Amino acid sequence: MAGDKVKVFGMWASRFALRVEWALKLKGVDYEYINEDLPHNKSRELLQYNPVTQKIPVLVHRGKAVAESSVIVEYIDEAWGDGYSIMPRDPFERAQARFWAKFVEDKCLPSIYQVYFKTGEELQKAVIEVQESLRTLEEALKGKKFFGGENIGYVDIIAGWIPYWLHMIEDLAGVSILSDGNLPLINAWFNAFLDVEAVKEALPPKDKLYAFNRDRREKIISGELNYKR
Amino acid sequence: MAGDKVKVFGMWASRFALRVEWALKLKGVDYEYINEDLPHNKSRELLQYNPVTQKIPVLVHRGKAVAESSVIVEYIDEAWGDGYSIMPRDPFERAQARFWAKFVEDKCLPSIYQVYFKTGEELQKAVIEVQESLRTLEEALKGKKFFGGENIGYVDIIAGWIPYWLHMIEDLAGVSILSDGNLPLINAWFNAFLDVEAVKEALPPKDKLYAFNRDRREKIISGELNYKR
Repeated sequence: MAGDKVKVFGMWASRFALRVEWALKLKGVDYEYINEDLPHNKSRELLQYNPVTQKIPVLVHRGKAVAESSVIVEYIDEAWGDGYSIMPRDPFERAQARFWAKFVEDKCLPSIYQVYFKTGEELQKAVIEVQESLRTLEEALKGKKFFGGENIGYVDIIAGWIPYWLHMIEDLAGVSILSDGNLPLINAWFNAFLDVEAVKEALPPKDKLYAFNRDRREKIISGELNYKR
Repeated sequence: MAGDKVKVFGMWASRFALRVEWALKLKGVDYEYINEDLPHNKSRELLQYNPVTQKIPVLVHRGKAVAESSVIVEYIDEAWGDGYSIMPRDPFERAQARFWAKFVEDKCLPSIYQVYFKTGEELQKAVIEVQESLRTLEEALKGKKFFGGENIGYVDIIAGWIPYWLHMIEDLAGVSILSDGNLPLINAWFNAFLDVEAVKEALPPKDKLYAFNRDRREKIISGELNYKR
C-alpha cells in the first residue's frame, strides 16, 4: 500500500531494536532498517520522529512514529491484528505476559548489566543476582516450551536478547552464570528460542557483536565511557 | 456473581494502589480493599498472591491475582471491556498512551523522588529535572483537557498521583516547582484531574498523608530508613 512503508530506526548491536525486528518478522511485515550512528551522530529523521527520548528503536508506520521497544511490540501486534499472535487473547494471560516482561526489564536486565561492567566482589554479587532472577523467571516457563506456550510471544520477544547475549557476557566477564545456576528450563528455552527461524534471521553476527561489546566493556570499566542504558 | 469478588491489596498512602482504585471506580466495579501493614508485616494472602515481587498493589479477580499497578490498570480495562474506556481503541493512540505512561514512570517519577529525599545542591538539580520532565509531558496535553482527551484515561491514571503529592513534596522540601516552572498545561491538568469525582473518592486524607510523608522523609534523610521505591 502506498504510504504504508514500514521503517525501523535501530542500531545493529541493539537488543531493543532486535525486539522490533522479531515482532515484524513474526507478522511477516517487510520493513526498511535504518542503522543509526550512535551516540553522537543521530540522523535528523530519528530526532524528528522521537524528539522526546531521542532513542532507538523507533517504528514508522503510515507516517506515524512509535518509540520504546516494548510499546512498539504491542503496537505491531495490534496494528497487524491478523495472523501471528504475539500477545495472548485472554485478559488474565495478557496481564501475566506484561507482568513477566516487566520483571525481565526491572530485575533481569539491570543485574545482567552489572555483570557486564562490574569487577571483583560487585561482579560476584551480580552473578548471584542474575541467577536468582533467572530462577524466578523459570516460574513462567513451567510446563511450556516458550513463555508464549507452543510458540514465542511477548515475553519471549522482550527477554529474547538474553539467550544470545548472556554467553558472550559470561565470557567477557570470566564468570559462569548458566552452567552453575541450576536453570534447566532457562537453558532449554535458550536453545529453543535461538532455533526459531524468525529469531535467527535478525541476529547480528556473533564475532562482530563480541568485538563491539569487548571494546565497550573495557571503555566502561576504564571510565572512558559513561554507562548509560 | 459468586466467586467474582474483587479484592485490592494496597496500602492507604501508596500512589500505586491508588491507580488500581481509580481504574475500578471509573469502571463502576465494587471491591474490597485490604490495607497492608508495610513493610514488615505483610499478610499471608499478599505473599501468596504475589510471591514474585511481594509488593502491593495486587488485584484479585475470580480467584486470580494480577500484580504491578500499570499491568493491573490495563487488565481492568480489558476484563471489564464494556463501559468506560481507559485505553483508547486505536492502536496508534494506545501506543502513544503507553509511551507517555512509560515517560512518567522513567523520567518524572525518579526526579520527583529525588526532590523528596535530597538536600542542598542535589535538591536544586532535582527541582530543575522535575520541571524539565513536566514541561516535556505538557506535549501530551496540547489541545486537551486530560491526557485521555475529554475524559481521564491511562496516562491520567498513571500520572494522577502527581497533582495530589507534588504540592506536599514542594512544601516538605521547601522548594517551588510548579509556580516557577512555566507549566500552564500541567497546572490546568492538576486542577481538572483533582476535580473528577472518581479521583477524589479514592484520595487519602491530606493531613494524614502529609504527616506520614514528613516522617518518612526525615527518616530517609537521616539514614534511619533506606530509600526503596
